[in-house]
Amino acid sequence: MSQTRMPTPRTRLVREAERGVYDRETAYRILDEGFLCHVGFVADGQPFVIPTSYGRKDDRLYIHGSAASRMLRQMKEGVPVCVTVTLLDGLVLARSIFNHSMNYRSVVILGKATPVDDPLEKVEALRLLSEHILPGRWADARQPNERELKATLVMRVPIEEFSAKVRTGPPIDDEDDYSFPTWAGVVPLETVSRPPINDPRLDPQYEAPPYAAHYVRANQSA
Amino acid sequence: MSQTRMPTPRTRLVREAERGVYDRETAYRILDEGFLCHVGFVADGQPFVIPTSYGRKDDRLYIHGSAASRMLRQMKEGVPVCVTVTLLDGLVLARSIFNHSMNYRSVVILGKATPVDDPLEKVEALRLLSEHILPGRWADARQPNERELKATLVMRVPIEEFSAKVRTGPPIDDEDDYSFPTWAGVVPLETVSRPPINDPRLDPQYEAPPYAAHYVRANQSA
Repeated sequence: MSQTRMPTPRTRLVREAERGVYDRETAYRILDEGFLCHVGFVADGQPFVIPTSYGRKDDRLYIHGSAASRMLRQMKEGVPVCVTVTLLDGLVLARSIFNHSMNYRSVVILGKATPVDDPLEKVEALRLLSEHILPGRWADARQPNERELKATLVMRVPIEEFSAKVRTGPPIDDEDDYSFPTWAGVVPLETVSRPPINDPRLDPQYEAPPYAAHYVRANQSA
Repeated sequence: MSQTRMPTPRTRLVREAERGVYDRETAYRILDEGFLCHVGFVADGQPFVIPTSYGRKDDRLYIHGSAASRMLRQMKEGVPVCVTVTLLDGLVLARSIFNHSMNYRSVVILGKATPVDDPLEKVEALRLLSEHILPGRWADARQPNERELKATLVMRVPIEEFSAKVRTGPPIDDEDDYSFPTWAGVVPLETVSRPPINDPRLDPQYEAPPYAAHYVRANQSA
């Protein structure tokens, strides 16, 4: 595992430094609870931000997609990327509009993505991605064949230069505002799953497995 | 309102074109249901992707932040930005790993952000932002004063060059895979609110107002 060497001048938080956390364990916990990231890359001077899923193994983040996708074709050229994961935990209602906020946990990773060429690492990365989102599914589904592996590009982003940001707890109002006549507090937000919907073409002998019927992520806290 | 003139070569979907929708109404519905965006900008060749909230009025998106924030300082210089909003609606479990997917709705806006200098438009943009996230709150809270307005930067991003992408419905498997012995279908995901948590310093005479006690966004569909 590579040395922790952050914050760099690029990832050091210039504002709200009290919300910044730079330890790897906090960042990993956030990365492991989420599975949707927003990947930023530059093409012809224009930034693009594209949502996609990811998996993690140690200090490597994996993303994947079609070999024909614009995002992955760009990344294949070794351009700098930014991968951001945001978990929204609540709305923070202060007495003043100015001090309204959100409770959230986020990780920003800066780095260069490189294609995973080794066939074994590629299949393993796809398994990680699948198991990261839906533990148990890989073994139950038809696994990728040669043609599908060829059509899939897997990219590795090293988790080296990163920062995490966490806000939790109640609103912080200016001292003068605590007497302002209004309610203040937090509205917790959470992503939940609903009962699974069978594919209309499902053979009725198959029931939804527990990982689909009772899908849960790690608990989010307000 | 400016003329709809998309897709441009930059926003035209090169893959999965069947998921692309370019009409303004669909994009606005997605933007109005979400309130968290990921803003991409470039500094010294490095893309950054930062989560933040937004509001919308007609074909203008507003974001705000501290006048000291790196993101807004960059944007103030009129650099190109990308604003992406993603609503995650479900996990799509196909029979093959390759055809696993997610149901989601997303909007990608490319443009240049410009600062809102006019004091009236600035306050109105802050009101829009507040009401977009939490309708009813603006009137109940202490509104921004001169000092706070000065410390706040509001940026306007025109919704001109954009694309939306929508995936709904069941998995689509290769015809040969429909006989593969596994369950297939959709696990719907939804963001919900939990009962509000009073600020520990709350004067007990104030109860959570309905917009906090029963916070709902527009229903998401699987």
